[in-house]
Amino acid sequence: MKSGGRLYGIGVGPGDPELLTLKALRLLRAAPVVAYQSASDRPSIARGIVSQYLTGNQIEVLYHLPRALEPEKAKSIYDQAVEPIAAHLAVGRDVVVLCEGDPFFYGSFMYLFTRLSDQYETEVVPGISSVMASPVALGLPFTYYTDILTVLPAPLPAEVLITQLLATDAAAIIKLGRHFTKVRDILHQLGLASRAKYIERATTSQQRIVPLDEVNPDEVPYFSMIVIPTKNKL
Amino acid sequence: MKSGGRLYGIGVGPGDPELLTLKALRLLRAAPVVAYQSASDRPSIARGIVSQYLTGNQIEVLYHLPRALEPEKAKSIYDQAVEPIAAHLAVGRDVVVLCEGDPFFYGSFMYLFTRLSDQYETEVVPGISSVMASPVALGLPFTYYTDILTVLPAPLPAEVLITQLLATDAAAIIKLGRHFTKVRDILHQLGLASRAKYIERATTSQQRIVPLDEVNPDEVPYFSMIVIPTKNKL
Repeated sequence: MKSGGRLYGIGVGPGDPELLTLKALRLLRAAPVVAYQSASDRPSIARGIVSQYLTGNQIEVLYHLPRALEPEKAKSIYDQAVEPIAAHLAVGRDVVVLCEGDPFFYGSFMYLFTRLSDQYETEVVPGISSVMASPVALGLPFTYYTDILTVLPAPLPAEVLITQLLATDAAAIIKLGRHFTKVRDILHQLGLASRAKYIERATTSQQRIVPLDEVNPDEVPYFSMIVIPTKNKL
Repeated sequence: MKSGGRLYGIGVGPGDPELLTLKALRLLRAAPVVAYQSASDRPSIARGIVSQYLTGNQIEVLYHLPRALEPEKAKSIYDQAVEPIAAHLAVGRDVVVLCEGDPFFYGSFMYLFTRLSDQYETEVVPGISSVMASPVALGLPFTYYTDILTVLPAPLPAEVLITQLLATDAAAIIKLGRHFTKVRDILHQLGLASRAKYIERATTSQQRIVPLDEVNPDEVPYFSMIVIPTKNKL
């Protein structure tokens, strides 16, 4: 029997506060402690999504994390980040950890889960991933019937991206950032550029949809995506 | 300027009624007409998920649809299914169409979208897909950092499944049904059986998690999945 507080990892979705689930909202409002990350010197995106739902009587725990962190470096940072969260759990306080998108799908919560779930009762609430929200925001039916979908992080080597794109029906290329030009050139090379649609910060108030060849490669944020929907006709 | 009612395609998530989004709930409760599908002679799964949220004053439109329908056959069935929905839209009534999971991710709403969105104002609300909910229900961190995720429908030929599984970091094999034995044998052949976890009807009151080699192939439902999480260590 585990003792102490309960740990909740809740997906807060891609950006629109209305895309929180009812379950995430209930757990968020009931928790005495709310934890979230941000990149250094920037406000937390996850906290921004849920700010209107916070009760005003909650303890908040912030931990800083560099963007696009390499796994080896992440380990020591998460070892430290875990400590104030574990301290609340140890004295019996429940802690909700906010996670953009879905906690187990490229989500930062996984690092906390592996460190704390053996010791404390843990519950995870799935969230709307930007991989689901972006095709909807673009008005593009994404996959159907026996389509294969491949989710490809843009930092992968060009030859890996090419091989994968040639073998799939639909794709989401995520984490574009400074890898945008490489990806755009590959899409032209493969004849996929006309089907590929670019979107950044889907469902937020700063959402932008830009034609692929009009995107300024110097201004592509980490939270951007290229969606290649199925070409199969419905 | 389009006239008539507004068409909403809303994802109702994988099964747990609390995994509806706040936006889906708001639109659902405001709509005078609610439409949903079911397999012949069975209650609608999507309606079951939201039944507690219906106001009691809503017109309901049901259309029947065979499971695992081939696209060519689907076309004529959807041509017919669209008619009562279009009739409500034509006289100015908003219609919410319920969709299990996410509307544009293997969702039945895409067939309605392609037939009606040119004529009527249409809004789509993303939902939690079982592909996101199943790793969470299994307690398996799914993908991180530069992992590739591949979503594979089980009806695909064995050689396609093998090629794809060899080239990816993480996978969800969906729509198992009568294709279970083929998939299980492939997973053993590729040395993936120990990492592969089986779940059916994730997040519903009938959710079942069964060790891969203890699954009865004759009783595998369409709403089942095998999750292969990343092997990369966090």
